[in-house]
Amino acid sequence: MTTGKSNADDEAQVRKQMDDFVKAFCTKDVDLMMSLFAAQLVSFDIIPPLQYVGSDAYRKIWQDTFALFQDPIDIVISDLNIVCDKDVAFSYCFLQLNATMMTGQKINYWERLTCCFQKIAGKWLIVHEHVSLPVNLKNGKAVMDLKP
Amino acid sequence: MTTGKSNADDEAQVRKQMDDFVKAFCTKDVDLMMSLFAAQLVSFDIIPPLQYVGSDAYRKIWQDTFALFQDPIDIVISDLNIVCDKDVAFSYCFLQLNATMMTGQKINYWERLTCCFQKIAGKWLIVHEHVSLPVNLKNGKAVMDLKP
Repeated sequence: MTTGKSNADDEAQVRKQMDDFVKAFCTKDVDLMMSLFAAQLVSFDIIPPLQYVGSDAYRKIWQDTFALFQDPIDIVISDLNIVCDKDVAFSYCFLQLNATMMTGQKINYWERLTCCFQKIAGKWLIVHEHVSLPVNLKNGKAVMDLKP
Repeated sequence: MTTGKSNADDEAQVRKQMDDFVKAFCTKDVDLMMSLFAAQLVSFDIIPPLQYVGSDAYRKIWQDTFALFQDPIDIVISDLNIVCDKDVAFSYCFLQLNATMMTGQKINYWERLTCCFQKIAGKWLIVHEHVSLPVNLKNGKAVMDLKP
């Protein structure tokens, strides 16, 4: 999905950033991952607290996350939609995390991922990210068995 | 926060949409709420499934949600950030839901809310929304006692 007004090059660049997001996640490449984010990012991550602000705090979260998993981490994104204007864009998709934790526990669930971009010094960077699982409000539990 | 390039009028219009989001929620005004969304909206809501697509499905969710609560519903948003381009914008904030359910149960927690807008026929409409609670992945429970 595009606005019909977006520059195809811009949309391709945002798509490349999402491809690199997957690549960085699969290969535990913290530097590649952080290269996709603006320094002043605000992340509403799947885990508490309510937000992470700034790339230093968020780099640590990726390092801690990657340390939880054995290689390889299998990441798939589906239903990716991108909407681009000249300097502001957003994307949303589902992301499947299929991996084995260092404890041996296997996990495999689909998250929802929204990324909001600004073109900063000619490069599309994620300034805001929102990742989540739906919650069953009757029992307070995250719902981890849904598929797109 | 703005891009520095955004039109102040556009940012004011997006802010008005967020004000009306709060007003519609507090007053259980389904028509006002749905007037803020594009017909082809994609919502990653706090509750399952992974997404709601289209205004008919989403109208029903708001009707069902409003029916759960006694009057009044107290909604507060904080830390609202808006980034506007010419035809694409996004906002993110925290939203406090403080209400009494029809069952008598009182709830009071902060959610994260991201809204992605397109200017359609001259009006800023939410084409994608993402609402969530953080989850403690160790026990699978939503974390509902966090404050901004």
